[in-house]
Amino acid sequence: MYDLVIIGSGPAGLSAALSAKARRLDFLWLGSRALSPKIAKAERIMNYPGLSAVSGEEMAEAFKKQMADADISIEEARIDSVYNMGKYFIACSNELMFEARTVILATGVSSGKEIKGEAGAIGRGLSCCATCDGNLYEGKEIAVVCTAKELEDEIEYLAGLAKKVTVFAAYKDYSTYAENIVLRREYPNEIVSDEHVRAIVSNGETIPVDGVFILRESISPSALLKGLETDGAHIVVDRQQRTNIDGVFAAGDCTGRPYQYAKAVGEGNVALHSAIEYLNKLNKA
Amino acid sequence: MYDLVIIGSGPAGLSAALSAKARRLDFLWLGSRALSPKIAKAERIMNYPGLSAVSGEEMAEAFKKQMADADISIEEARIDSVYNMGKYFIACSNELMFEARTVILATGVSSGKEIKGEAGAIGRGLSCCATCDGNLYEGKEIAVVCTAKELEDEIEYLAGLAKKVTVFAAYKDYSTYAENIVLRREYPNEIVSDEHVRAIVSNGETIPVDGVFILRESISPSALLKGLETDGAHIVVDRQQRTNIDGVFAAGDCTGRPYQYAKAVGEGNVALHSAIEYLNKLNKA
Repeated sequence: MYDLVIIGSGPAGLSAALSAKARRLDFLWLGSRALSPKIAKAERIMNYPGLSAVSGEEMAEAFKKQMADADISIEEARIDSVYNMGKYFIACSNELMFEARTVILATGVSSGKEIKGEAGAIGRGLSCCATCDGNLYEGKEIAVVCTAKELEDEIEYLAGLAKKVTVFAAYKDYSTYAENIVLRREYPNEIVSDEHVRAIVSNGETIPVDGVFILRESISPSALLKGLETDGAHIVVDRQQRTNIDGVFAAGDCTGRPYQYAKAVGEGNVALHSAIEYLNKLNKA
Repeated sequence: MYDLVIIGSGPAGLSAALSAKARRLDFLWLGSRALSPKIAKAERIMNYPGLSAVSGEEMAEAFKKQMADADISIEEARIDSVYNMGKYFIACSNELMFEARTVILATGVSSGKEIKGEAGAIGRGLSCCATCDGNLYEGKEIAVVCTAKELEDEIEYLAGLAKKVTVFAAYKDYSTYAENIVLRREYPNEIVSDEHVRAIVSNGETIPVDGVFILRESISPSALLKGLETDGAHIVVDRQQRTNIDGVFAAGDCTGRPYQYAKAVGEGNVALHSAIEYLNKLNKA
């Protein structure tokens, strides 16, 4: 059992990890070794104190060098769900599970906007994890909303199980094809569900489906952790980066605007200090 | 009239200034060209993302280079008071006045702790500015609480006016002497006032005085701006770094713990974005 897992490898996660290392916490940092895809794509960053007019690539290089200097590494894992076990938490990816007494969510903000009906359909036929829930749809008709090329592996897997897969992919360079895939180059408008998902609506057309998968680079926080208070796509936090769940903290773009590197590193630092305070209380209790 | 004055030249002020420049605001940055004295004194900073294991001096050098690259400079001024004029603000140093529609306070946290009775004595014989109020005490007996060698100029000036000056200086290297100065190597316990300051208490002794001057590297926020909501030595802000006064924002150590570079740059960035939002509303009104 770790003291802390940090979920997300952007600037907020890095800031929390550097401070966790400095404070000698027993922690695990989960994310992508490529850090945040948004950083590398940034053309020129003019307002991050300490790095003068850097490109996104230069910033990523500085971060990676610093991680090496500090002997910090990222455990490659895309976390799909976090379970609140009362006195600890379990973070799950497709294949791995990690236990920790506190969690810092630094998951970034979801690139695709929330689809109408999405929140109400969670756990009723809407899933964010092909490996977790794919086998429920063997021989059935599903829709997959995919927001980035890196996530197409999961479409392939689902196409191997389901009878028919309607894929919504509005980005360039889509490249996963199969006989049972119907590709739509658009972002859907609505997910229709009652006790279970019934259909997906796009461009005025209602397509009956047995289930919907939404694949995003960062998962929507309300889908990630049950009971987490959110405001639209953002996690609600106080000035100490505490969420409504004891032991869960959040930092960076996932807590709201402005979407800025400086804000993210500041919040990552504060979240870590709040996590330490919480752990100290646990130890005394 | 500027759109914005930023008061304070630590990391929070720099972060606000870099973003203000990027957003092409008509702003003025007030502080010390030496940046923050705390930065230069820092031995090794292990947890500031982007600058790996830097000394305080190296961080200050990186900041100064970045300021030059961005063509940003600091107007040398130690602001003693900010006046709320309703639709704009006036920031005053000993000799200069600056008008602006919004203010970001990034003043750091006062090194000396607040003295008992301090808040109640403001404007009743307690002053933070020798030049402003010194001439009120010609031929009188005063106490001066001084917290740093750099501020001793003001003691010299006051000793030239007053009959007797009791100086409280607990730091090393004190070096200002005059016939009418009584030096006490201690920090006082209480300022006694009714309608006016009557005495200062230290080490069990009550010393009658006509006035008290407190000289600190950063002024206490409640003394800086009348009506500003504070909590002890800290300015109360919300998640957008807004204070209780419309158009006034605060960032960095002055808003509370943790006293961390990353937190300060994050808050400076957010404060600037909130100031822009406020200015946009003013322009539409």
